[in-house]
Amino acid sequence: MNIGLSTLDGAGASVLASATPNWDLDRVVAGLREVREGWREAQQRRHEYGGRELPSPETLRQLLLALRGALFPMRLGPADLRQESEDFYVGHTLDAALNNLLAQVRLELRYAARQTSVGATTLELQAVSIVRDFATALPDIRRLLDTDVEAAFRGDPAARSVDEVLLCYPGIVAMIHHRIAHKLHQLGVPLLARIVAELAHSETGIDIHPGAQIGPGFFIDHGTGVVIGETAVIGRNVRVYQAVTLGAKRFTSDEEGKLHKGLPRHPIVEDDVVIYAGASVLGRVTIGKGSVIGGNVWLTRSVSPGSNVTQANSQHEVLNHGGGI
Amino acid sequence: MNIGLSTLDGAGASVLASATPNWDLDRVVAGLREVREGWREAQQRRHEYGGRELPSPETLRQLLLALRGALFPMRLGPADLRQESEDFYVGHTLDAALNNLLAQVRLELRYAARQTSVGATTLELQAVSIVRDFATALPDIRRLLDTDVEAAFRGDPAARSVDEVLLCYPGIVAMIHHRIAHKLHQLGVPLLARIVAELAHSETGIDIHPGAQIGPGFFIDHGTGVVIGETAVIGRNVRVYQAVTLGAKRFTSDEEGKLHKGLPRHPIVEDDVVIYAGASVLGRVTIGKGSVIGGNVWLTRSVSPGSNVTQANSQHEVLNHGGGI
Amino acid sequence: MNIGLSTLDGAGASVLASATPNWDLDRVVAGLREVREGWREAQQRRHEYGGRELPSPETLRQLLLALRGALFPMRLGPADLRQESEDFYVGHTLDAALNNLLAQVRLELRYAARQTSVGATTLELQAVSIVRDFATALPDIRRLLDTDVEAAFRGDPAARSVDEVLLCYPGIVAMIHHRIAHKLHQLGVPLLARIVAELAHSETGIDIHPGAQIGPGFFIDHGTGVVIGETAVIGRNVRVYQAVTLGAKRFTSDEEGKLHKGLPRHPIVEDDVVIYAGASVLGRVTIGKGSVIGGNVWLTRSVSPGSNVTQANSQHEVLNHGGGI
Amino acid sequence: MNIGLSTLDGAGASVLASATPNWDLDRVVAGLREVREGWREAQQRRHEYGGRELPSPETLRQLLLALRGALFPMRLGPADLRQESEDFYVGHTLDAALNNLLAQVRLELRYAARQTSVGATTLELQAVSIVRDFATALPDIRRLLDTDVEAAFRGDPAARSVDEVLLCYPGIVAMIHHRIAHKLHQLGVPLLARIVAELAHSETGIDIHPGAQIGPGFFIDHGTGVVIGETAVIGRNVRVYQAVTLGAKRFTSDEEGKLHKGLPRHPIVEDDVVIYAGASVLGRVTIGKGSVIGGNVWLTRSVSPGSNVTQANSQHEVLNHGGGI
Amino acid sequence: MNIGLSTLDGAGASVLASATPNWDLDRVVAGLREVREGWREAQQRRHEYGGRELPSPETLRQLLLALRGALFPMRLGPADLRQESEDFYVGHTLDAALNNLLAQVRLELRYAARQTSVGATTLELQAVSIVRDFATALPDIRRLLDTDVEAAFRGDPAARSVDEVLLCYPGIVAMIHHRIAHKLHQLGVPLLARIVAELAHSETGIDIHPGAQIGPGFFIDHGTGVVIGETAVIGRNVRVYQAVTLGAKRFTSDEEGKLHKGLPRHPIVEDDVVIYAGASVLGRVTIGKGSVIGGNVWLTRSVSPGSNVTQANSQHEVLNHGGGI
Amino acid sequence: MNIGLSTLDGAGASVLASATPNWDLDRVVAGLREVREGWREAQQRRHEYGGRELPSPETLRQLLLALRGALFPMRLGPADLRQESEDFYVGHTLDAALNNLLAQVRLELRYAARQTSVGATTLELQAVSIVRDFATALPDIRRLLDTDVEAAFRGDPAARSVDEVLLCYPGIVAMIHHRIAHKLHQLGVPLLARIVAELAHSETGIDIHPGAQIGPGFFIDHGTGVVIGETAVIGRNVRVYQAVTLGAKRFTSDEEGKLHKGLPRHPIVEDDVVIYAGASVLGRVTIGKGSVIGGNVWLTRSVSPGSNVTQANSQHEVLNHGGGI
Repeated sequence: MNIGLSTLDGAGASVLASATPNWDLDRVVAGLREVREGWREAQQRRHEYGGRELPSPETLRQLLLALRGALFPMRLGPADLRQESEDFYVGHTLDAALNNLLAQVRLELRYAARQTSVGATTLELQAVSIVRDFATALPDIRRLLDTDVEAAFRGDPAARSVDEVLLCYPGIVAMIHHRIAHKLHQLGVPLLARIVAELAHSETGIDIHPGAQIGPGFFIDHGTGVVIGETAVIGRNVRVYQAVTLGAKRFTSDEEGKLHKGLPRHPIVEDDVVIYAGASVLGRVTIGKGSVIGGNVWLTRSVSPGSNVTQANSQHEVLNHGGGI
Repeated sequence: MNIGLSTLDGAGASVLASATPNWDLDRVVAGLREVREGWREAQQRRHEYGGRELPSPETLRQLLLALRGALFPMRLGPADLRQESEDFYVGHTLDAALNNLLAQVRLELRYAARQTSVGATTLELQAVSIVRDFATALPDIRRLLDTDVEAAFRGDPAARSVDEVLLCYPGIVAMIHHRIAHKLHQLGVPLLARIVAELAHSETGIDIHPGAQIGPGFFIDHGTGVVIGETAVIGRNVRVYQAVTLGAKRFTSDEEGKLHKGLPRHPIVEDDVVIYAGASVLGRVTIGKGSVIGGNVWLTRSVSPGSNVTQANSQHEVLNHGGGI
Repeated sequence: MNIGLSTLDGAGASVLASATPNWDLDRVVAGLREVREGWREAQQRRHEYGGRELPSPETLRQLLLALRGALFPMRLGPADLRQESEDFYVGHTLDAALNNLLAQVRLELRYAARQTSVGATTLELQAVSIVRDFATALPDIRRLLDTDVEAAFRGDPAARSVDEVLLCYPGIVAMIHHRIAHKLHQLGVPLLARIVAELAHSETGIDIHPGAQIGPGFFIDHGTGVVIGETAVIGRNVRVYQAVTLGAKRFTSDEEGKLHKGLPRHPIVEDDVVIYAGASVLGRVTIGKGSVIGGNVWLTRSVSPGSNVTQANSQHEVLNHGGGI
Repeated sequence: MNIGLSTLDGAGASVLASATPNWDLDRVVAGLREVREGWREAQQRRHEYGGRELPSPETLRQLLLALRGALFPMRLGPADLRQESEDFYVGHTLDAALNNLLAQVRLELRYAARQTSVGATTLELQAVSIVRDFATALPDIRRLLDTDVEAAFRGDPAARSVDEVLLCYPGIVAMIHHRIAHKLHQLGVPLLARIVAELAHSETGIDIHPGAQIGPGFFIDHGTGVVIGETAVIGRNVRVYQAVTLGAKRFTSDEEGKLHKGLPRHPIVEDDVVIYAGASVLGRVTIGKGSVIGGNVWLTRSVSPGSNVTQANSQHEVLNHGGGI
Repeated sequence: MNIGLSTLDGAGASVLASATPNWDLDRVVAGLREVREGWREAQQRRHEYGGRELPSPETLRQLLLALRGALFPMRLGPADLRQESEDFYVGHTLDAALNNLLAQVRLELRYAARQTSVGATTLELQAVSIVRDFATALPDIRRLLDTDVEAAFRGDPAARSVDEVLLCYPGIVAMIHHRIAHKLHQLGVPLLARIVAELAHSETGIDIHPGAQIGPGFFIDHGTGVVIGETAVIGRNVRVYQAVTLGAKRFTSDEEGKLHKGLPRHPIVEDDVVIYAGASVLGRVTIGKGSVIGGNVWLTRSVSPGSNVTQANSQHEVLNHGGGI
Repeated sequence: MNIGLSTLDGAGASVLASATPNWDLDRVVAGLREVREGWREAQQRRHEYGGRELPSPETLRQLLLALRGALFPMRLGPADLRQESEDFYVGHTLDAALNNLLAQVRLELRYAARQTSVGATTLELQAVSIVRDFATALPDIRRLLDTDVEAAFRGDPAARSVDEVLLCYPGIVAMIHHRIAHKLHQLGVPLLARIVAELAHSETGIDIHPGAQIGPGFFIDHGTGVVIGETAVIGRNVRVYQAVTLGAKRFTSDEEGKLHKGLPRHPIVEDDVVIYAGASVLGRVTIGKGSVIGGNVWLTRSVSPGSNVTQANSQHEVLNHGGGI
């Protein structure tokens, strides 16, 4: 065909003028519906006209911002808050946050019960009870977080004040989320707990499973790439650095993983342990009290209290002067 | 000079009262303009009065949120959506999203063609064609993503349901972005594709180049620090953990990198491979079907199907009881 | 008690109808107040009716978005900006940004001086002076950032244009924040500097202490997990990849860390060095000009110019064919 | 006392520095609580811990914007809507709007039933039924509104097109609200209806009671100050101008107003009547078909079809040349 | 049927639990589509897939807020603007506002030309020319508005300063809109002009047709209910109060209105006239220079310069002592 | 010239492609600056680098929304408020509102003092004192508003409950604003008071000067067009309808208006008076206790208690049967 550019451009002017094109939306929408229906059939979902069945990560994100403010009003609350009205702010914020949480708890309980015959009222009473218990636990959560803030202040020579720690340290964000997520996990809403944990993961690069039990005074420095597994147990005043993994020894447990998924499979870390950047501690091993695990160490067995474990790194480098290559 | 603080403070009161100070903005603005003009000259940019020449990451961020919702309406769509109106939501959302995408595609095409003589109409027809092809591909993208969700559910013993996977797993966010970015990359808008990939990188810590070819059923667990290069080829049902790199053997290709930049330089990973956390696989090597690569392994050569590669880690630690230091 | 579910559900209807439950908010609020007061007492905080004492991360986040736009108006400014009005946009944006910065600087200075007798006016004059110096430095900051953009373009064979670099590369975001944070650090507002650095850390996974001195043409590829310490000194045209640490040899300096916290304890990296992914360089060592540090290398001593350091990785793998396990 | 201004200013600097003052909030809050409790006692409200009992005007405002868009998608819908996806938009918008409406209907029904023993389920079924009937009525509402738009186009020589009428005429906004409010009034939620009417009143200055019955083709020009009462009955193709009142003859019914409040007390206006600006028609009078009521006329009795009523205005002015005063 | 309430309530609990009901949306959407299609057929609209054809009132509302700020930056601009950066703000704001205006002008021109054969380029050049002329006229518009502000200050004994006038007087809002709308009307975009006028009408209750010609120093006090018609001509330093109408003598011109719609049909008001609240001046009459028209006067004929027109109000009241009724 | 449309359109395509045109912004900005400077010179404003000098209507709009919520939390507060946390909400809301008010009060005081030598500290102390007095007055304001709500409920046979009155009646909005504005007026910030009044005027069409003294139980029905002047004095339980004016007899006081502007010039309305729609009462006259003023009455003299004043409306109409014209 022999149509020059200028002709096309002439035609194009009217194309441009006649506004936006047709995307054949009906076909695309139908295609997407078909895939959705295939999926639902494969997952044996009942097709019913219903509303949202699952909690909303965005709603929980807002909720966590509110809880951060309620826990630390003068530091993480609104910029113009004054001490005179701290309690007003805390009460007003909690009221909205707890009611939003109630709605999310309801969704998870209802979803979990969707193949049982538990009645609506039972679920509602359970949801209210969970939120009430959560509310009651907030002062203790704050108390624990205070120990984490102090630990960060003591643990980082560069920290100038506890306030700086609260404002800047990603490890503190991760711990606020974890202590909240852990409580939700204990109260029987593990999906909400997981979403709360993933929100911190996205913000800080620190990935702590809500099931992990962590004692007071826990400090994570830098933090990016830290992974702490579901059955890990961590004592008091433990310090870890970026890219530390407290994981499962997945290699050997590969075939049976699904069978024993409730079993303890992550490390126990006793009080006053320090684990430096990049170290991996895998499996249900115990790091004895006061031990120090060096950077990049790969550890799959228990060590007794007071151990120092370092990488045998001297054999590790091959040095060539560039010119010699 | 002998001015006491109280005097200064007296003066200060009027300073405070006379409001905000002068920043000498004209000079700063002129300084910035001068640098900009120097840069533009150095880059041989024509100085013309024009509007935005490049796509907007923020616009694409909004667009991806819309596409996530259109692909998984009851899970990632608005909180108050009901099944009765799923198709209305999907159609309405896609309409806005595709038109916004068209505007961004236009910008990239125009930018790419800025030193050629391609006419406006040709670009417009090309832009419309790209968006139409993208729209048509959406059902297949959803179909692939369903395999990823199932893989995550199968691969993680801690996952309770496919819904939890969709709501919580950063690996799923990364794959939604990647499957969209890969299609845009194929359709000839690599800059948009790259922006889409980087949005996932920022949100999840998972960095997949849009050019990477990834088969169905791909599962990334935890994910922080994963890097997958442009020419990587990944088969079906592959699983990788956090901090895995599928990279180029950059060391040897350093001087010539720019010359061969189209050439395959990242690994081929065959079906059913598992790569544990921290492993680095570098260069155009092949990991044979069903192989398992252990944590922290550094691998720069091919391995045959069914291999198990582990770090020789037993020699790796030097243990001292703390008291002995 | 013998109440069946259906009866409960009958009651439940009225529960649902009688709206939301009581959280015993007064008690929770009182509990939180008590913990706060305990903390304040422990920290020897005076209880006074005052407003916010500390800078706001959210305000700084907005401020950095504005500064990014003012530094690169046609790339990172608003989508509909045109060159004709660049200067208007830059001036208007800077005006608001600098005044917001002034308010934040005031908060930090006042907070730092809260136990001294420095007068309000002195602080105000100092705050104004800091912001004025910061404003004056902006053209130089842009000039340095231009060298970083060019370095990224030269350093990554996959980069198609300097514009793509500016739009997509997390390393550029990290450097915009760092060069701003470093200037704030120099000007005497280290807390603001730290918050600016952590904002980039959260967005990119790259953690650069504001005190680090970094020469022109610095390029970070991929970036997730990079950590650069407070006293690191980096020359011209240095390139680092993901998960590189330029850290302190914390192990040995553990007991004395707090005593010498101002001392140089991070590496000096001379011009033209390349450090590949996962390498750790620890302590006040010097990497000589033009050296190349390989992936995953663990380095705690100085190397002379032109060195190539690689991991002794050949001994590193234990290969088993899967069937043989 | 003999303190000069400068001394005060010195003190003032520290006042300014010590941040914001104390408002004695506890006392003010207690004062307000006391008044509220007094009011609730006077109104014999039960003091119970409950959520919102009444519909929200702000929610209804958003809802009406959505309904305007659903009724006239290409004119009052989103700026970037295209005909291809009109139905998607309408369906998606109605879905959200109707569910929001359901929540508001629930609140009104529950509030109305608060002193009865109607069960929660009965109310819920009633609420659903009201919203379903409302949804079903929407096409007819649109059909009626089309006649109003045509009437405005015919009735105003300055109107250039029906589209201009829809975009600009406050009378059309008032009628969209009225036809929706009237339907809600009929369906048994008079409070919602009233709020919808008041939203139009605030926006346009036109105050139509939701109970008023208005035939097709009704046109209000300019509109500010128009008041149409609850029992007014208006025929087809009636036209009124600004500041027209169709009110009750309140003067004589003053003492008994409360007794007979359901009785017809506003005018009947037959087909094809025109009422010019500022005219007041008061009481249960009938304006016969095709009559014309002149500007500022005060009319308290019925007029037969085809009447022309004018103000006896010639006697009305007293003219003086200004110099003569 | 014999089902008691409690039974219904038991059922209701599951109704409530099974989430939101079905609105039969498909049918409602289809009903609305049918009405739309009927309307489009009746209006002889071509059914084509296209985008928005008409300007957007909401966009114009935002645009007017921007123009108000650009015209009076320190009074109606952003709260934190400082004089140092006024020009930056004005330039930046105008840039965005004019480009938004261009898009709206395009829509109106395209819509007006939809049944002609005018090409896209011609329309585009015309649109650009209109916006450029509008931009050029802005300083003169500001100059005229300054006279209006001064007139308000002189005319209202309660005004304390010209700044108060600018901040508080609805008459000033109305005049800012009118002087902008009048210019748009002159430039050939009467629909945009009308929307701008109606935005002021909604905000202030003052309804001035964009075609009205109004000299400098015009002051409207209180303003609610003022109506000024399309062909009105108003001289210098005229003052009007609330509810004044400068309208057409519609009564007699009723049948022929459509024929002569371009003809002058509203009053000419010469310099220095004052018209008090509620007065109606109707038809193409002339109010001579310096005349004073009293409150509630109904005037349909010309009066010579210097006239005082008052209502013959003394005969107007019938006074009864209440007890005597 | 002989260029056909198609040629222009060909050119036009590239015009469209080359993005947005040049507005010659520098010239427009310079033009506007010139007018501003002319104005400032004419007004004898000092040209100094300063921030905002005047209160912000938008800020006050937000503030009034907050105060409405604090005064009537369960009715005008947030939709999800519960009685349990009313006080938290009230305290938190007031805290923010009072601090925002303080900033606005500061601006007005500083502006009013700009040509005096009052020191910054004096102004600050005065500002704090005004806000504190305002806060203290809030319970009394609420108490008065309760009488207005009750009056509306009693006065309108159509009102179903006091709650409906609070949610729907524009007269209540006007009175909330007035009682707040009147207090601000008394406390010495008349500009803020005026802005508060104008916000109600814009929303409701009711224009009450902040200086007007209004007793308890005041009810305005419909309201559009009501004007109440600065020195009006209104007793207890007065009721007025739409378009009622309580104004100055401006006609006779025209020349001397500026001289006597503090003097009482608006009516005194004693207890229990009713004034029907459209009536004008002008000048310092007294409407005796219990009088009733009929619709559209024009009254410029005092009437004794218990009077009934009606328009002599019977002579008022000229009736013609339409056919006879």
